[in-house]
Amino acid sequence: MLSRLLVFTLLCGAVCAAQAPSGQPLPSNVLNAPYPRINPDQTVTFRIKAEAAQKITITSNGGFGDIDLVKSPDGFLMGTTKPLSPGFFYYSVVVDGFTGSDPGSSAFFGYAKYGSAIEVPGAESDFFAPKDVPHGTVREDWYLARGTGTEGTWRRIKVYTPPDYDTSGRTRYPVLYLQHGAGENETSWSNQGHEDLIMDNLIAARKAKPMIIVNENGVMPATAGLPSARPQPSPGTPARPARAMMDNRFTEFEAIVSKDLVPFIDRRFRTLADADHRAIAGLSMGGAQALRIGVDHLDQFRYIGLFSAAIGNLDPATDYDGHFKDAAAINAKLRLLWIGIGADDFLLAGVRTSHENLEKAGVKHVWIETPGAHVWTVWRKYLVDFAPRLF
Amino acid sequence: MLSRLLVFTLLCGAVCAAQAPSGQPLPSNVLNAPYPRINPDQTVTFRIKAEAAQKITITSNGGFGDIDLVKSPDGFLMGTTKPLSPGFFYYSVVVDGFTGSDPGSSAFFGYAKYGSAIEVPGAESDFFAPKDVPHGTVREDWYLARGTGTEGTWRRIKVYTPPDYDTSGRTRYPVLYLQHGAGENETSWSNQGHEDLIMDNLIAARKAKPMIIVNENGVMPATAGLPSARPQPSPGTPARPARAMMDNRFTEFEAIVSKDLVPFIDRRFRTLADADHRAIAGLSMGGAQALRIGVDHLDQFRYIGLFSAAIGNLDPATDYDGHFKDAAAINAKLRLLWIGIGADDFLLAGVRTSHENLEKAGVKHVWIETPGAHVWTVWRKYLVDFAPRLF
Repeated sequence: MLSRLLVFTLLCGAVCAAQAPSGQPLPSNVLNAPYPRINPDQTVTFRIKAEAAQKITITSNGGFGDIDLVKSPDGFLMGTTKPLSPGFFYYSVVVDGFTGSDPGSSAFFGYAKYGSAIEVPGAESDFFAPKDVPHGTVREDWYLARGTGTEGTWRRIKVYTPPDYDTSGRTRYPVLYLQHGAGENETSWSNQGHEDLIMDNLIAARKAKPMIIVNENGVMPATAGLPSARPQPSPGTPARPARAMMDNRFTEFEAIVSKDLVPFIDRRFRTLADADHRAIAGLSMGGAQALRIGVDHLDQFRYIGLFSAAIGNLDPATDYDGHFKDAAAINAKLRLLWIGIGADDFLLAGVRTSHENLEKAGVKHVWIETPGAHVWTVWRKYLVDFAPRLF
Repeated sequence: MLSRLLVFTLLCGAVCAAQAPSGQPLPSNVLNAPYPRINPDQTVTFRIKAEAAQKITITSNGGFGDIDLVKSPDGFLMGTTKPLSPGFFYYSVVVDGFTGSDPGSSAFFGYAKYGSAIEVPGAESDFFAPKDVPHGTVREDWYLARGTGTEGTWRRIKVYTPPDYDTSGRTRYPVLYLQHGAGENETSWSNQGHEDLIMDNLIAARKAKPMIIVNENGVMPATAGLPSARPQPSPGTPARPARAMMDNRFTEFEAIVSKDLVPFIDRRFRTLADADHRAIAGLSMGGAQALRIGVDHLDQFRYIGLFSAAIGNLDPATDYDGHFKDAAAINAKLRLLWIGIGADDFLLAGVRTSHENLEKAGVKHVWIETPGAHVWTVWRKYLVDFAPRLF
């Protein structure tokens, strides 16, 4: 026994040291999970336990490619990415055809399920790091929504209140309604987007006014199964969704936001309850919803933000019930129409055409084309650009 | 082609109707996920997609047994439980040795990972249903904790504030510090436990006083990997954890709670900031922590709740640094020591012995033995019994 132990110890001195994992666990891991981990060369290594699996692949829906894992001597299956830029990437663990998530990752709602993601850290992630500045809070609130129907449904929303909200007595605040993409939900802007930390840091730097942010779930039960059934480059809306699906989703959601949610928020929170102090924005499908709800309710919203929005080729002469036909009229009402999209976004062509059409028609708007694809890495930065322009 | 279509249609008329799923999706499913679903006979059916898997098992760590799924004609793998009582059960999907979660389920942090669970509904679930009563809110707050060290760490907590908190001006509230079990975290009492809805309903029925509830993460980074490495009947503490692990975890956590968390809560919220208006309780490992922190800090806490607590065989003469030796002294300080455990709990023997020892020693406490095992179904009911006795 002694000699076997000795051999093991000597072997381990050479082998174990050579195999000791370098780098460190990702900030998106659950507490104490050693993998996935980021290596000094900015690659990320995955490790999965599965004794009897024939094939395990890490898939990222285009985020960082697919990686076939290979057996390591200790019985785990492992694989490493190419060097990655800082940012947020969804991924799945595909085990013999079963698409699952990595127990080492925190859970993020995307693709209509709770799945895995890697947060690749970097100097540029600093704008959403928790710092020694006054912190706001993200709350869950329940409210009764009737939408287009008569029977009420209890719905849960997320609400960010700024750092001084609890102690500022009678101070009232403007409100940004901020929506996720298809296949995501009301938790996405805080979990994936870190809207709270972004705003805390912007407010501390006096770059944005203290404001309340409301996140609802823009996916309606009536559209069951549709968005998650088709492959997508990210949890955004497909470029050309079926008209019926979009109409159904938008009509119901628009009624919920304008008739139930806004009045609830104004009852429940100390808001500045007028259109001049209300903004609506969203990413991908949520951007299309923000535009629809915004222009239909200019009595409620005067600021609209479209983050990589699934708005197709917007024709101001015909689309959106003619709201854009009279440029002078809409310019007089809207204080901000913000349109941003990444150069590698699969929705780029449509959004750029929309921008050009709006420009030709004389509809004032801010237009920003940035690096990046249809991903959270981009949308967090859009909030940093958008929020300081509000109110 | 026509005849093949006809044959298919005729076949489907018989077969598809027979196979149309009965029952309905569980309340624990993500929006629009059709499975798992509860059938009229109180069984639950699982359905998993995995073309190439050799074996898929649903495992519930003793909750409702293990179920080997079988291929259905439509290419899914399916399986059904025996009839189940209403309640909450963790489960995993084991695919060829890979332990994953079910994309149809919401994500619940247990066993040191985000995994799946079924919420089997029933009439007795009514006490945590969202109802048309005034609703409180669950918040996420960040604070800087130093614990036993000097370098601060930013920690995220969950805080329930009661329905009238936002509108009650200068009113101050008592505080319950309420802890999860091993392998769980600060999200567990709201996600799994529905503490917010339980309290909303209790407060509306005037059965409990409006109070603030604080949930911290009692698993310290220093105890990396230990609790999740061993099989457990539930995410509770093993009955006899290694002393070093418990000491490490408790010393650090105790310092964080008593020196950082309590002062932060009293700064950030409108609290009644004295021991007579502070309670500490927890389940399983969290119960052992509540007892340790409570009796060490009777200047901070006067109410202690032990929900199926991992306290071993408590000997009042020797354990807990002699805090229980002088029964008269501790009886004079503690306003409530509440001890509850289920008849099917694997920790029953130790907790019952602890109760008997405390009784013999003359230490006043409430003792409740209920039906049930080491599960959330029981702990939610304990909150219903415990909260009305506070403050």
